Amino acid sequence: MRDFPFEYLQYKELIDRGLRKLVDEGDRKPRSLLGPLRYVFSGGGKRIRPILLLIAYQAVGGKSVRFKKGESRRHTERRLSRALDAALAVEALHNFTLVHDDIMDNASSRRGRATVHMMWDENTAILLGDELIALAYHSLLKEKSPRLSEMLQVFTEGVLDVCEGQAFDKEFQFRIDVTLGEYLKMIEKKTGRMVAVALEIGAIAGNGTSTDVDALRSYGFHLGRAFQIQDDLLDLTGDNRLGKKIGGDLIEGKKTYLLLKVLQVAREDDRRTLEQVMRGRGLRVREIDEVRKIYEKYGVVESARKEIRKNIMKARRALKPVGPSRAKEMLSWVGEMLQDRRF
Amino acid sequence: MRDFPFEYLQYKELIDRGLRKLVDEGDRKPRSLLGPLRYVFSGGGKRIRPILLLIAYQAVGGKSVRFKKGESRRHTERRLSRALDAALAVEALHNFTLVHDDIMDNASSRRGRATVHMMWDENTAILLGDELIALAYHSLLKEKSPRLSEMLQVFTEGVLDVCEGQAFDKEFQFRIDVTLGEYLKMIEKKTGRMVAVALEIGAIAGNGTSTDVDALRSYGFHLGRAFQIQDDLLDLTGDNRLGKKIGGDLIEGKKTYLLLKVLQVAREDDRRTLEQVMRGRGLRVREIDEVRKIYEKYGVVESARKEIRKNIMKARRALKPVGPSRAKEMLSWVGEMLQDRRF
Repeated sequence: MRDFPFEYLQYKELIDRGLRKLVDEGDRKPRSLLGPLRYVFSGGGKRIRPILLLIAYQAVGGKSVRFKKGESRRHTERRLSRALDAALAVEALHNFTLVHDDIMDNASSRRGRATVHMMWDENTAILLGDELIALAYHSLLKEKSPRLSEMLQVFTEGVLDVCEGQAFDKEFQFRIDVTLGEYLKMIEKKTGRMVAVALEIGAIAGNGTSTDVDALRSYGFHLGRAFQIQDDLLDLTGDNRLGKKIGGDLIEGKKTYLLLKVLQVAREDDRRTLEQVMRGRGLRVREIDEVRKIYEKYGVVESARKEIRKNIMKARRALKPVGPSRAKEMLSWVGEMLQDRRF
Repeated sequence: MRDFPFEYLQYKELIDRGLRKLVDEGDRKPRSLLGPLRYVFSGGGKRIRPILLLIAYQAVGGKSVRFKKGESRRHTERRLSRALDAALAVEALHNFTLVHDDIMDNASSRRGRATVHMMWDENTAILLGDELIALAYHSLLKEKSPRLSEMLQVFTEGVLDVCEGQAFDKEFQFRIDVTLGEYLKMIEKKTGRMVAVALEIGAIAGNGTSTDVDALRSYGFHLGRAFQIQDDLLDLTGDNRLGKKIGGDLIEGKKTYLLLKVLQVAREDDRRTLEQVMRGRGLRVREIDEVRKIYEKYGVVESARKEIRKNIMKARRALKPVGPSRAKEMLSWVGEMLQDRRF
């Protein structure tokens, strides 16, 4: 088990290198796009989606890699050649959502750096996002798999869901009666779906059976949900490696798992405080402590942790039908890592 | 020949109906997207790209239609079933470019109606454009053709070019040394390319030979160029069915074929006036007459007309290798119609 963190970093480097190549290949791109493209792809990020795709590919029978010493980078890339372009596609698409969402959310920083529309301007950010979608498809279309159209189908349904999830998210800002159920459906589309898509595409790229594909999609679904609830939780409990302000969701008046959960059980007087958050007018920093205390009182931080654990467990259980492999072990490890993450 | 205008309208109705279905099918979409989607698709437009795709499909051997009396709509749709979804994809993508470009260009109206970001807001317009890209791919992926991945390849290269053409267009706004050659390359990417893509995809959908496909792409290239120069010309000579202000390009200080052409030959004193346009600060309405006079003096309106005729001729000549058919005749007719259009 203890090699997985090292391997994760190796995968990450593989993805980072692939993204750089994606930008530089082909036609001479307009300078006004090239700079922002490089900026976005050099901004770090966990690369969790493309890495999951590569591991899923191996878990169902694709050629596997171990990042052994003395093994050339080219050898590794060759072994993953039937999944790498799809992995880059998923990451490019993820970055499209970040760039466009940051405009819509008026976000000025991400991962500790200025967002694209702040660093350049809104027009650049709009166009960059569009280009990222096109680049994503461009990369996916390089896959030589006989099941390419299946991959494209899954990918495109994912893009539709991401857009529609974002639309629901924006609609929710102006509603004070959003339920926890609606919220979970929204984040499933907006965030969870592309995690599930990544795993499903990896399984298709590895020519998995329909049982394999279903299993990995289901793993992705639960992992994605755990991931998003974790995100909401980290807004209160994370450290500053997140590159964003702690309590930012409350300051901005965003609906989160914690908020909607506590609203289900809170007493009248507490509800009044919480409804201020729901109205989306935002809180002052000192009011955040008050809300935090309400959260503690009703134990929603703990119930969020429980929900995360439950989903991680479900994710692992979903993998049952998939035969044993080192890649499968690594998928379990990713779940644990996620559960413990602080940033 | 005289049935072609009637047939064009029949095709247009087919497309309009298809677009409505594209919006309403599948999942329940978020209301904040559904309204704008319907708005955009009900805004008219010539539907020239999807119609050209359907005709190209027939010109290379796809099942042909004649819109005979007493023939059911379903019969027609069935005959075109191997190209209709691709046609809708091309139109959805075209609408994506309109919605996002209108934000970037600060345009308040299009075809006589408020643009999406004016009617709603910028966030809605950004998200709607994204959704339109996804819908376009979604529609294209419905095609049952064994050559689907070829169609997707051509389509995706087109999307990349459209984004990059728009980037060049925006870059040119801040440059006063743009040449006619650069301009033609930019509009080829931004506008012409998707016309060529439509024809190429139609030819692939009809399972055309590589000679057919090349011929139709080339036809599309020249038609697209003629179309764009015509657009620049209509800014000065068109009537108000265009739904935009005559002379608007000059008022906004846009680089056009006419402007860059006249700059190649104008004398020093006239250049000074023209450079004011090039600086992109825009002109007052009464200054437009002055520029118009310069255009007349050097005969650039006539040379634009000549360039359009030349490209229409080249387009028609490109079709030579394609066997005779009613569809081929209609492609020639489209060229003529374009040459004579006033709006």
